Amino acid sequence: MILEHIKRNLPNNNRLIVAGVSGGPDSLCLVDGLARLGYPVVVAHFNHLLRPEAGDEARRVEEVAISRGVDFLLGEGDVRQHAHTHALSLEEAARLLRYQFLFEQARNLQAGAVVVGHNANDQVETMLMNLLRGSGLAGLSGMLPSTLPNPWSETIPLVRPLLGVWREDILAYCRERNLKPVHDPSNVDTAFFRNRLRRELLPLLEEYRPGVQQRLWQTAHILAGDQEALQQHVDHLWRAFPTQCTGDYVAFDSEEFLSLPKGTQRRLIRRTFRHLRPDFTEISFEVVETACQFMARPSQSKEANLAGRVRIMLIGKRVYLAAWEANIPLDAWPQMGKDVSQLVLQAPGQVDLPAGWSFHAEYVKSISALNAQKLQRENPFQVYLDAGKTRPLLLIRSRQKGERFAPLGMDGHSMKIADFMVNEKIPRHARPKWPLVISQGEVIWVPGHRLAHAVRVTDETEKVLSLTLDQG
Amino acid sequence: MILEHIKRNLPNNNRLIVAGVSGGPDSLCLVDGLARLGYPVVVAHFNHLLRPEAGDEARRVEEVAISRGVDFLLGEGDVRQHAHTHALSLEEAARLLRYQFLFEQARNLQAGAVVVGHNANDQVETMLMNLLRGSGLAGLSGMLPSTLPNPWSETIPLVRPLLGVWREDILAYCRERNLKPVHDPSNVDTAFFRNRLRRELLPLLEEYRPGVQQRLWQTAHILAGDQEALQQHVDHLWRAFPTQCTGDYVAFDSEEFLSLPKGTQRRLIRRTFRHLRPDFTEISFEVVETACQFMARPSQSKEANLAGRVRIMLIGKRVYLAAWEANIPLDAWPQMGKDVSQLVLQAPGQVDLPAGWSFHAEYVKSISALNAQKLQRENPFQVYLDAGKTRPLLLIRSRQKGERFAPLGMDGHSMKIADFMVNEKIPRHARPKWPLVISQGEVIWVPGHRLAHAVRVTDETEKVLSLTLDQG
Repeated sequence: MILEHIKRNLPNNNRLIVAGVSGGPDSLCLVDGLARLGYPVVVAHFNHLLRPEAGDEARRVEEVAISRGVDFLLGEGDVRQHAHTHALSLEEAARLLRYQFLFEQARNLQAGAVVVGHNANDQVETMLMNLLRGSGLAGLSGMLPSTLPNPWSETIPLVRPLLGVWREDILAYCRERNLKPVHDPSNVDTAFFRNRLRRELLPLLEEYRPGVQQRLWQTAHILAGDQEALQQHVDHLWRAFPTQCTGDYVAFDSEEFLSLPKGTQRRLIRRTFRHLRPDFTEISFEVVETACQFMARPSQSKEANLAGRVRIMLIGKRVYLAAWEANIPLDAWPQMGKDVSQLVLQAPGQVDLPAGWSFHAEYVKSISALNAQKLQRENPFQVYLDAGKTRPLLLIRSRQKGERFAPLGMDGHSMKIADFMVNEKIPRHARPKWPLVISQGEVIWVPGHRLAHAVRVTDETEKVLSLTLDQG
Repeated sequence: MILEHIKRNLPNNNRLIVAGVSGGPDSLCLVDGLARLGYPVVVAHFNHLLRPEAGDEARRVEEVAISRGVDFLLGEGDVRQHAHTHALSLEEAARLLRYQFLFEQARNLQAGAVVVGHNANDQVETMLMNLLRGSGLAGLSGMLPSTLPNPWSETIPLVRPLLGVWREDILAYCRERNLKPVHDPSNVDTAFFRNRLRRELLPLLEEYRPGVQQRLWQTAHILAGDQEALQQHVDHLWRAFPTQCTGDYVAFDSEEFLSLPKGTQRRLIRRTFRHLRPDFTEISFEVVETACQFMARPSQSKEANLAGRVRIMLIGKRVYLAAWEANIPLDAWPQMGKDVSQLVLQAPGQVDLPAGWSFHAEYVKSISALNAQKLQRENPFQVYLDAGKTRPLLLIRSRQKGERFAPLGMDGHSMKIADFMVNEKIPRHARPKWPLVISQGEVIWVPGHRLAHAVRVTDETEKVLSLTLDQG
């Protein structure tokens, strides 16, 4: 059965295989199987210099290799020092140095794969550890039988041929083949947590549900397939879905984004983060939820800070995820054209601005004051106003020096339009050319932000005018 | 906070809500919250007739409802009897009768939703129970905040507004609002397994990883989104992907199917099963793996039995999943045309059969005997043969009465072609018109099945002819 698993996971294309061999039962079984099946293999052992007997163990692994006519490579590293320097646990440091060594050897020898001996029990333990740590689908898939690319190579896969073989079958194989493991890994396992799972949690679960380990293994196996399918689906979307994608910002059509299922939304947000901040790996549950909630109700605020110096913004119908330092082009915002000082918008009618933005004015059937305010909150680029308090000929122009504005919700008090724009976080370079709607010399609407108090719909309003600014 | 959760999960569209109220803290808290927020609600209580005090409890729930000016509906059912009749556990029977009652009331009252009080702790327990039971992504997502369709209705959602609220916050709310739970559900919980999780497993996990319940809740939340995304993706594929889809069989292009990620393959297989056998719900891990493995190496056998009286078959380049009783149309197989007694295939050259099938003959560069056999096993619709032992003019026709055939692998022994077809499980109605390749009066190839011994490639072969039959 061991041999079957090796053959299934490792095509024999006659390329050299570097086997990472600790000397425990798993790795001895693996080397023995590979040699019997005629795979060209070298044994690579890494001495972590953590225990006095490590040197003896290395020599005994070497003897096993020699007795099978297999080349032996020895590496060593000061794990304690490495852990100290990089603020890692001993376990993590040992793991990093060990895999670095294995892949270095594989590169030097132009090997076709690095193989290691993880078994089915390891898989179940890994899955449970990830579950308790709060992992999502990727973590719950446990380890993969073959990983490429992996953190150490883009071309040499890391293969685990024994991932489907249970520890007891490996021990039986060792007895049968008279393999003497150099050490019992469970005795020297520095991973306290893994040990507790193995000795305490798993027996308890097995008592609840006999056969639970088998089932957890199957679940990890199935979830790995689901993870791959979703990943591929999102990879695909990522290439086509954003309406803009530069090094420091990514834009989505807000409506289209919301039409995606929640899982896809979350994954696109994580993907965007990885794109904008490749080094920021700890994207938390809360950050993703905040971004999703912003997307779902972008009108409640126009901008929010996420994490890793990334913010999310609503501009028109687009939502931007952007690095703080991003210079989002003016196209993103509504702006007056270069040589245009003012435009006339006649109701009902339409007038165009650069970059596909246009104003629409139309009379609508009567709407309650309450409803008008509610709808405005939902889409800040559309307002309802009292047609009796404006002229049918409206002007569109940018702000004038010292101009004032009395926004709705301030009881008619006015403020400098320049200050209003700062308060509203309109980006500095977009302020001078931001289009304003003017009636009788007064600013009656700052699109995307606020209507003027004077023209609001009240219970006395007889005729309602709707103004919209959108980007086609 | 409780009110926030209710508002977020339950849009107030003024439609009546049927609240399932056991009288425990969760459901009392829910009814109190709904009433305070002004939702139109009726309290529905189901008496399971399992405990002597159940009648008193029902009366106390009624008092709570009345004290809040809310209508009260009482249902009851003989759970013990129902469990006995339908071979269910008491718990399952209670659940079924209770939900039937709630949705019946909701239908009668034309209600907009049925709400129940499950809380965040229930969610974590459900997720863990499903994990130990061996569930995949759907089970690991736990319960959903809103389910539609659900097993009881296509139009009335089952809503769980408190799914994100922890038990201790619900108890605090009850104290604050002076709500006196009629009973402590953990005392009367008939679910022994859930109780052990709550009292034994969860405290242990919390000891390993403080905050683990929060994290498990978040994981379920995220996985629910992933499940929805995958489901939608597969729904989409299902509509377009099968090359044929009838009530009793579904065909896939074998190569296209294999180009999908494993997770998608598995889900399409499950979907196909649901389509073919809606009542066969226990599609096991093993059945799906068997089907996937058949797809990956269909040539190793041409047919396999799965489960639920469904088989999988390779016919040409297509893989069929079919009910046993399915009458797969003759188009699926290569067949001689109606009024055509024989066709001539000149090498090199091509000749067409009905339904897009065609034969190709070409000379290929020399190939070893071993390799020829290996390739034939991989694609039974392509063979390599010794061109020196056949004529360049081959005939294509159906079998003749009493005709014999000496298949490769039988050392030149021959058998009746009719028996060979039975052995090879060629469907009965496809046998009479199955095309055979004839040279010098002898059957040299039964396409899809076997080459004749006489024309096999040997080490002495000088010129190799390749014959292919495929469906465009």
